[in-house]
Amino acid sequence: MEKKSGFCNVTAIFRNDALEQVQQRLQEIGVNSFSVLRVNGYGEFADFYSPDLLTHHLRIEIFTTARQGDAIAQTIMDAAHSGLAGDGIAAVLPVCKVYWIRRRTEVEPDEL
Amino acid sequence: MEKKSGFCNVTAIFRNDALEQVQQRLQEIGVNSFSVLRVNGYGEFADFYSPDLLTHHLRIEIFTTARQGDAIAQTIMDAAHSGLAGDGIAAVLPVCKVYWIRRRTEVEPDEL
Amino acid sequence: MEKKSGFCNVTAIFRNDALEQVQQRLQEIGVNSFSVLRVNGYGEFADFYSPDLLTHHLRIEIFTTARQGDAIAQTIMDAAHSGLAGDGIAAVLPVCKVYWIRRRTEVEPDEL
Repeated sequence: MEKKSGFCNVTAIFRNDALEQVQQRLQEIGVNSFSVLRVNGYGEFADFYSPDLLTHHLRIEIFTTARQGDAIAQTIMDAAHSGLAGDGIAAVLPVCKVYWIRRRTEVEPDEL
Repeated sequence: MEKKSGFCNVTAIFRNDALEQVQQRLQEIGVNSFSVLRVNGYGEFADFYSPDLLTHHLRIEIFTTARQGDAIAQTIMDAAHSGLAGDGIAAVLPVCKVYWIRRRTEVEPDEL
Repeated sequence: MEKKSGFCNVTAIFRNDALEQVQQRLQEIGVNSFSVLRVNGYGEFADFYSPDLLTHHLRIEIFTTARQGDAIAQTIMDAAHSGLAGDGIAAVLPVCKVYWIRRRTEVEPDEL
């Protein structure tokens, strides 16, 4: 699926305090568009000082080419890595199609 | 994957002020179930009046049939389109299975 | 895609008041890592006492093995099920790769 469409989605969940570093490293490799939101994490993400074992992480989501997906995941890992439990995960998901809302056209692989 | 399961996920990130129009147009084409959340955007989404180049967008997510995915993405594009930078993107992702929690059964393609 | 990578993503949207039960049941089957966030729902999710037909749900997201995806979706359904409209949905999405940020390595299927 990834190869056929030419696109993928990189989603990562990481520590709040790594955002500035992640953002900077992504821009250095030419990734200029991404969205970020707050999530509550459990388990691997647990904060044992919190009464409900819940902690706050950030979730980043990037739509990119299939070719760049792994490099972007690696960049996020390098930027968000502390070596401690709760560092989170990065994943690459397949994508069928991506469209620009501004142009109302499909994105071509060389545009991302 | 999309064809095999019969389902897909349409995810779009668009301007806050387009929500009412997006919601109305989706309902006109028979899409009655979707979820919306706030995200922070960077890059393509940047608000240059904001000190951290961050802006606020909405992220909509719809689980639908593989057959309807592109038409729903088109409808969101038409509704959220302003023609300016920062209009955002729409994407179609493959889905393996969808279940109704109310019935605890798999969704059949003609139910979405 | 799911079979090739060995991983999948389970995403479910369910009632706010089911979180404690969902969390407990997931831990009982050995799922210790997941993230949760608030979403606004429309349509199937509509709260007819709300002026904008909008209601608040939770969205859970779990990265797991392809083998466990359906059992986790079933567990969430059992825990979040009330039998009423607005119970929400659970879906299994294919995933290409998953990485540990702490170790900067790919996750092996037997680690999730």
